[in-house]
Amino acid sequence: MLAPISWRVPPRHYGPWELFASLLTEGLVSRGVDVTLFATGDSVTAARLSSVVPRSWSEDDDIDPKVAECLHIASVFERAGEFDLIHNGFDFLPLTYSGLVDTPVLTTIHGFSSPRIVPVYARYDDRTSYVSISDADRHPDLTYLATIHHGIDTDAFSLHADPGDHLLFYGRIHPDKGAAQAIALARRVGRPLILAGIVQDQAYFDQEVAPHLDDDRVRYLGPIGPDERDHLLGGAFALLHLIEFDEPFGLSVVEAMASGTPVIATRRGSMPELLDHGVTGFLVDGAEEAVAAVERVEGLDRSAIRAQAVRRFGKDRMVDEYLGAYERVVRAR
Amino acid sequence: MLAPISWRVPPRHYGPWELFASLLTEGLVSRGVDVTLFATGDSVTAARLSSVVPRSWSEDDDIDPKVAECLHIASVFERAGEFDLIHNGFDFLPLTYSGLVDTPVLTTIHGFSSPRIVPVYARYDDRTSYVSISDADRHPDLTYLATIHHGIDTDAFSLHADPGDHLLFYGRIHPDKGAAQAIALARRVGRPLILAGIVQDQAYFDQEVAPHLDDDRVRYLGPIGPDERDHLLGGAFALLHLIEFDEPFGLSVVEAMASGTPVIATRRGSMPELLDHGVTGFLVDGAEEAVAAVERVEGLDRSAIRAQAVRRFGKDRMVDEYLGAYERVVRAR
Repeated sequence: MLAPISWRVPPRHYGPWELFASLLTEGLVSRGVDVTLFATGDSVTAARLSSVVPRSWSEDDDIDPKVAECLHIASVFERAGEFDLIHNGFDFLPLTYSGLVDTPVLTTIHGFSSPRIVPVYARYDDRTSYVSISDADRHPDLTYLATIHHGIDTDAFSLHADPGDHLLFYGRIHPDKGAAQAIALARRVGRPLILAGIVQDQAYFDQEVAPHLDDDRVRYLGPIGPDERDHLLGGAFALLHLIEFDEPFGLSVVEAMASGTPVIATRRGSMPELLDHGVTGFLVDGAEEAVAAVERVEGLDRSAIRAQAVRRFGKDRMVDEYLGAYERVVRAR
Repeated sequence: MLAPISWRVPPRHYGPWELFASLLTEGLVSRGVDVTLFATGDSVTAARLSSVVPRSWSEDDDIDPKVAECLHIASVFERAGEFDLIHNGFDFLPLTYSGLVDTPVLTTIHGFSSPRIVPVYARYDDRTSYVSISDADRHPDLTYLATIHHGIDTDAFSLHADPGDHLLFYGRIHPDKGAAQAIALARRVGRPLILAGIVQDQAYFDQEVAPHLDDDRVRYLGPIGPDERDHLLGGAFALLHLIEFDEPFGLSVVEAMASGTPVIATRRGSMPELLDHGVTGFLVDGAEEAVAAVERVEGLDRSAIRAQAVRRFGKDRMVDEYLGAYERVVRAR
């Protein structure tokens, strides 16, 4: 299991790719699969851990990201002969080593940060098996083995007896994620808003978020660790996920659902695959529909929302599907 | 021959690593060596050219440097079995592919851009043979096969009958290269100064260079192509190379010498290896010694300077030394 080294596995707060690697690795180990996790040295796992960097480059300025990443990736491929399969959860750079070893490589594509990275995936389309994380995120030039939606640890989330009347924004503070849209909507419907997540675009935060913070109606909590997540998500009236991009997957959407919290999301990217419109929340096009959706939230059954999340997005389902994919790849050799 | 793809081979103006790759490749081909040059698609060579990117990423914004570089490097190693030796002139990233192939790899280390890249070289110290470009640039943690000083095409430079009375700065406009020191020295000794080279640090240019430009006593010509280089270098009273870093090698220093132009250089890095103090120029510590050196320049014999450059820094000498190094590597297998 080749994890990224932007953050520890599992991440302390933000780090969706590292969270995925952790949940899948621990799930596989619990099924008796012999897994070696390639991740930062301070990672925590029941698998065998192999590390060439002590800490994530996001958390240690002495580490050059490019240096650490190529040493990290090479350390997997130099041991390729020991493994039946390499699961690449890192992004595109490992693909360029895959032609030099015989071990099958399965790659989870976590999204295309830019159209300029597609040529690498296209170049290695014959060499590696691609798994998309939503049907919406499939690129027409690539061949896919399967779409496997992420699973989460639904036991870490719970139905809250007495949720508040506030709306919640939970995600990276970046134009893609729609923090400004959430602030505008909360103001319009007259509800308080809590924002949480890392600041990924400081200029956007300074211009679009900071001026609205008043410690009362609009509050920003900063990044939130795993221990606070259940309380944060479960305590909200609804999660606002008014994204401005075709998001490949939305972990926070599924996590909110696991807490029984309805989600109001822009009808873009993977959202129609994750949300059952009128059951777990509402898909909206634009501000008018979002306002109407807030009014309909109270008609939803929060226990039914959680039940749906457990059924569709539990980690065991994800582990099952990856095990099936691994078997297909290994047998096809 | 694995060249960088920051610029075409040979470069149109700036691109010292690409210039090195070109001179060595053409020299090897002229000796009958069967060379495949991995470089941008618009490169010009008598060798077999292999390219995965049409143009350099510095000259095409549609190209993602990281994407282009890993595809470029992988394309060499995926064909490793066809070659007796891979000469890596690219920097550290190719080293991390070298453990996955059997072909010997010789790496010319063009310098350490940061101490944070040394761990990659250390990791592959046993796997690849390192060539330093000066004794001064050797890192104590690494094992070296040889130091091979760069050679240049000395035929492209010529002694100028009637050089001007102006001083010359020729290099990247960056604090390392001492443009500000050159301006101060020219002012102090009352001579005009011409500056030429790419702007690599715009803030430095704006603050330390631009305010002094007057189209008369201090002039900036911008980047200079190969066709203008002989005239630029040969026409100067002296080249000022008042560097503020331990430069691994100075191509412009050797090129100036090939035009018979004396060089006044800070006694740092490779300068004592390149300059014969009192013959081809002067090594100086600080501004006082630099002023004294300008006064002594007229005592130097410009034809003797050129003769020394031809003797010590001709490309044939470099090709001979690399052929010797290749033989040692291939025989040691």
